[in-house]
Amino acid sequence: MRLVRFGAPGEEKPGLLDANDVVRDLSGVVDDIGGAALTPAGLARLKAIEPASLPAAPPGVRLGACVARPGHFIAVGLNYADHAEESGMAIPAEPVLFSKAPNCIVGPNDDVIQPKGSTKLDWEVELGIVIGSRARYVDEADARAHIAGFCLANDVSERAFQIERGGQWIKGKSCETFGPLGPFLATPDEIDDVQKLAMWCDVNGERRQRGSTATMIFGVDFLVSYLSQFMVLDVGDVIITGTPPGVGLGMKPPLYLKPGDVMTLGIEGLGEQRQKVVPFEG
Amino acid sequence: MRLVRFGAPGEEKPGLLDANDVVRDLSGVVDDIGGAALTPAGLARLKAIEPASLPAAPPGVRLGACVARPGHFIAVGLNYADHAEESGMAIPAEPVLFSKAPNCIVGPNDDVIQPKGSTKLDWEVELGIVIGSRARYVDEADARAHIAGFCLANDVSERAFQIERGGQWIKGKSCETFGPLGPFLATPDEIDDVQKLAMWCDVNGERRQRGSTATMIFGVDFLVSYLSQFMVLDVGDVIITGTPPGVGLGMKPPLYLKPGDVMTLGIEGLGEQRQKVVPFEG
Repeated sequence: MRLVRFGAPGEEKPGLLDANDVVRDLSGVVDDIGGAALTPAGLARLKAIEPASLPAAPPGVRLGACVARPGHFIAVGLNYADHAEESGMAIPAEPVLFSKAPNCIVGPNDDVIQPKGSTKLDWEVELGIVIGSRARYVDEADARAHIAGFCLANDVSERAFQIERGGQWIKGKSCETFGPLGPFLATPDEIDDVQKLAMWCDVNGERRQRGSTATMIFGVDFLVSYLSQFMVLDVGDVIITGTPPGVGLGMKPPLYLKPGDVMTLGIEGLGEQRQKVVPFEG
Repeated sequence: MRLVRFGAPGEEKPGLLDANDVVRDLSGVVDDIGGAALTPAGLARLKAIEPASLPAAPPGVRLGACVARPGHFIAVGLNYADHAEESGMAIPAEPVLFSKAPNCIVGPNDDVIQPKGSTKLDWEVELGIVIGSRARYVDEADARAHIAGFCLANDVSERAFQIERGGQWIKGKSCETFGPLGPFLATPDEIDDVQKLAMWCDVNGERRQRGSTATMIFGVDFLVSYLSQFMVLDVGDVIITGTPPGVGLGMKPPLYLKPGDVMTLGIEGLGEQRQKVVPFEG
């Protein structure tokens, strides 16, 4: 099952993609793609619906983020060995965790705003995990049962804010529009092996990132288990799991985004995103 | 006006403290102390109510966190020069930001759970700011207009998780029960000068922290303005602003909390908290 949210920003309705990629309207069935709809019981209920019985959304409708705003938006840093290397940082002995402001989440094809004062705006294609049931001291072997599904994410980053402004990374990870999520949430049964998915990111049509979830240092189940040792994960929380090599920071010389640039990115089985960079206009 | 939330965990009702410190029930007026109730218009509406016209809550009722779960729970590190020194860290040139998981927020007198594997559990009395209107690139001179009020917070911390487990501080700041907030949210008119408030924290009756918001490196208005350059602050977001000297990490030798210990803390004009440390029982 591939779940979406569609409609105008802030007014998204829940939906699903049918076998022909037509958006079907779930707003008569659930309030949103979040909360109870993401639990095992909620997903089972949605799965029992015949997609053709649902109204079709207007063709070309805007997609919002594929899940409702999470209570917590957590990210894993340096989780691909070769990305750690290109960033000039050590390969971590255990996962590096940080967070992004949940209100930076936007739709998969929305514009990305270059913040005021930004000079080092960068891209990061990532696999996202959406939590489907409360996870608290979960063993790795039990982690998968707490996952509602997976999605594509762009962990948009401002490297000067992240690295040169003192302290913690959150400063360069939380700006408005820095969290495109979607196009859809794929339930685990849609994905053969989440640790064997090709992933890529182009800027202005040039391939910048290419990789595979096969080269993650810490895999999906380990991450859910690990995080649950340090915090309670609630239904709807989103975890993005790190990026493969090829970010602007790692290029020689570094290459950063400017207004007018276009990012296109994708993960095998999880669809594609396209964002245009626009200047901040207050 | 002093706003509270009262009742069983997860079922808190909104209320206010009258002049005799009696909790008055606002559940007939607003849904929660959050969202629209915290905006300038929402607060003006509450202020127009005669407290004696509201039902009194049962005496001794439990207080929950004084605001509904925020969309973002942001913290400022090393914001008192002498605390930075005792932590062995440099005085920051600009604010150090990190976040806590919003679901770690609990009532002011709830138990604090020592996480599994915790060896360095520590206390931090802090002034909290609650946002009352959306703040995006706000000037320092305009910041106060975006503040709904202030509250007492304990930024409970696990120093080994925070410092010794690799990467970012969030790992030692987000565990279940690590965010006692309250007893009440004081609207700005309740406080003569938010930068001249005495603050203290005792452990088992011994004074460990004493300080004043007068010695903050970065003041309240600056922090709201600064944060709003890196992320959008939404109504109900909570910012805790750093701790004065006297944490366990800074003692020689360091002293950490163990089950049975009791923290009592307060800020002038913002009330007091009391938490007992309990072991995790899964």
